[in-house]
This record gives sequence, structure tokens and C-alpha cells, in this order.
Amino acid sequence: MDSRRRVPSAVFDEATAVLDEPDWRYVAQPELSPILRGALDAFYEKGFRGTTVRDISQRAGVTMPTLYYYHGNKEGIFTALLECATKDVLARAYAARDEGGDKPEVRLAYVVESILLRTLISPRMVALEPDIRFLSAPNRDRFERVRTGVERLLLGIVREGRRRGLFTVSDPVLTTRALLDMCDAVPRWYVECPPKYQAVAQKYGAIALNAVGYRADG
Amino acid sequence: MDSRRRVPSAVFDEATAVLDEPDWRYVAQPELSPILRGALDAFYEKGFRGTTVRDISQRAGVTMPTLYYYHGNKEGIFTALLECATKDVLARAYAARDEGGDKPEVRLAYVVESILLRTLISPRMVALEPDIRFLSAPNRDRFERVRTGVERLLLGIVREGRRRGLFTVSDPVLTTRALLDMCDAVPRWYVECPPKYQAVAQKYGAIALNAVGYRADG
Repeated sequence: MDSRRRVPSAVFDEATAVLDEPDWRYVAQPELSPILRGALDAFYEKGFRGTTVRDISQRAGVTMPTLYYYHGNKEGIFTALLECATKDVLARAYAARDEGGDKPEVRLAYVVESILLRTLISPRMVALEPDIRFLSAPNRDRFERVRTGVERLLLGIVREGRRRGLFTVSDPVLTTRALLDMCDAVPRWYVECPPKYQAVAQKYGAIALNAVGYRADG
Repeated sequence: MDSRRRVPSAVFDEATAVLDEPDWRYVAQPELSPILRGALDAFYEKGFRGTTVRDISQRAGVTMPTLYYYHGNKEGIFTALLECATKDVLARAYAARDEGGDKPEVRLAYVVESILLRTLISPRMVALEPDIRFLSAPNRDRFERVRTGVERLLLGIVREGRRRGLFTVSDPVLTTRALLDMCDAVPRWYVECPPKYQAVAQKYGAIALNAVGYRADG
């Protein structure tokens, strides 16, 4: 049960990304081990840098050797949490895009909705992501690839919509960044999953459509 | 030259907010004392929690007693930096709004442009703002009031534009948040002021107009 072995790096590859559920709109609350629950509380409160392994062991009610046995070190614990937070983000986004068929406007709204759904389900886990910058290079690269993947996906849709004259966007790269930033900031507003999270996710899809200058009557 | 005395709390009050320059588009690079330059490097790199006063004293090349004399403690140093970062944000935003006259679409674009200008001029200082949450209540409240002020200002414009049928916004509060989030994330993309920062600021104004569903032909 070494959690370091649970991580297939192939989940970040579009070709092999597979969703646990066939419906990208279905997002389960991540099931966390007691160690990871304690770690989430600690990292959320104090950040990656401010958290000690001792802190996590106290919150989780397990000994330090147990922690080290399962996760190696603090980065191992943080990485295991991020894994839960990010493992199907890309697969979900691709599935959302594909459901949008040939319509860039539907694709965009669905992809943004897919990002929001998983954020709203576990905002505290997504809130850890800025601390990815403190990880060692291989782990940092691995998780940054998820973000880059989502960015490319969105940029492709924005460009396609613009090419077809559906979106009014003067700078696709800057607009795509703004869309991502808007999604990334959501954990600032929610500590727990809000009751009507599906409605919130859809509203963000609508705001994204506005942001690219799409109008149904265009 | 006690820097603790330089801080007039009235700058956060709309009625008394005064810009150093009559033109809100003019933003000077903040002039920092050697202590604050060292502190900016330290806080930017390690965050408020991860930075020690010793760390700052080494980077600034001043003794610890000198640091304590000028700024009291770590929070005092951080507060002095935030002061420089935020002191005319609101005054600038009000001036931008007023220049927009009676047109919500011009007001919105100008206010967003004003926010971006000061962020792009010193992105590393604005990047410190999320750590405001770690401050003691009075300081936290003081700086959060700036953010709340900007949020209210934007929300008022969004609502007015919607009321007049100029903006297509299903949820003004959520849309305003998304606009703010988009602005707040800018320091993630820039470490130094980019050469064409004025153009970038204007583009964000245009993205904001899109985001509220405004079209010139509407």
C-alpha cells in the first residue's frame, strides 16, 4: 500500500487519459486517507512551506515513521494530495470538449464547466495548487503539465471560435489566460463545496462565453 | 523618518482619496528604501510566513535593531510594503471611473485598465497581497477594505450597465468576482513590468467589456 506507487503518470496524456466515470459532469468527493486528510488541513492552513511533517502527523494521529513509510517525505505527501486533486482534470476537460461536438461555443462553456465542477467539489484541494512552484523539478513539471494541457485546450477552442467569426477576441492568448485565472481563483470564494455547485459551474461557463465575445445572435 | 508615520489611513476613504498625479494613467515605479527592497525580495520568494526578520536584514544589509527601529516587527515591514502597493489603488480607480463619465462601458474599461496599470508596474509587490490573510485583524481589515472598495466600484458599474441594457450579465456578483480574479492573477504572468504594459492594461479593459457581454453595436 505504498501510495507512491498508485500514480500512473500516463493520466496526463490525452491519448491515454481515462475517466473513472463516463460522464464528465459527475465528480465524486475525493476519498482521502486519514494521513491525507490531516495533510490537507495543514497545507491549506499553512502552505507547503509552512507545514512540517510533525504537524501533519499530529493532525492525522499517526506516527512520523508511518508518514515516512507511506509518503517518503513532505513533498511525497503533498504530491499524493495534488494527485487526487488533478488526476482527471484533463480527461474531464477533453470529454467536455468532445461533448461540445463541432461548436466552439459549446466546447468552451463545457470545458469551463468541467474545470469548475471539480474545483467546487473540493476547493481546499485545488487551493493547494499555487504551491506546486515549491516542488522539486520533476514533480513541478508533472503538475504544471496539467495546467499547460488545460491552457492549450482552451486556447485551441478560443482560436477556432475566432477563426469562424463566432468569438470577438483581440488577443486569444491573453483572453485564455484570463479565463484560466478566473477559474483558478474560485477556491478563494469557497472553502467547502457550495450546495448549488452545478449552477455555479454553468454560470462560469456563461461568463467565459461572454469573455470571448460570443453572442447567440452573433 | 519613521516609516510607520508615513501612513495616512485616510487613503482608503473615497471622499479623501487623492492621487499624487492628476492623471490616473500615470503610475510611477514605487521608490523603496533599502530595507523594503530587501523585504520585497524575501517576501516574494518565501511568503510572509516563510520569511524571517533575519532574512530581511541580511538581504537589506542592515542590522536587526535598525529593522525593528523602523518597522517594529515583520508585520510592520510587510505592512509598509503593502502600503506602497495599495495606497492609491482606490483613488486611481475612482478617477478612472469618473473619466468614463456617464458611460458604464467606458467606466468599466477604464477602471480595469487602472487596476492593471499599477499591477503591471510592480507585479512583485501586488503578488504579496494574498498574504494579507496572515496579518493581524486591524491590518488585515485595512487592506481588505481596498479590495472590497474596488469590488463595490466594479459591481456598481456592472449593475448600472446591466440596468441600461448595455451589458448581458446573468449574475453581476459572480461576474464582478471573475473580473477581479482575472486582474488579481496578473502577477502570476509577470515578474517585472512588461515593456508594453499600457497596451496590456488596455487589452484587459477590452476583455472585461467582453466578459460583461458588452458590444459596441449592442
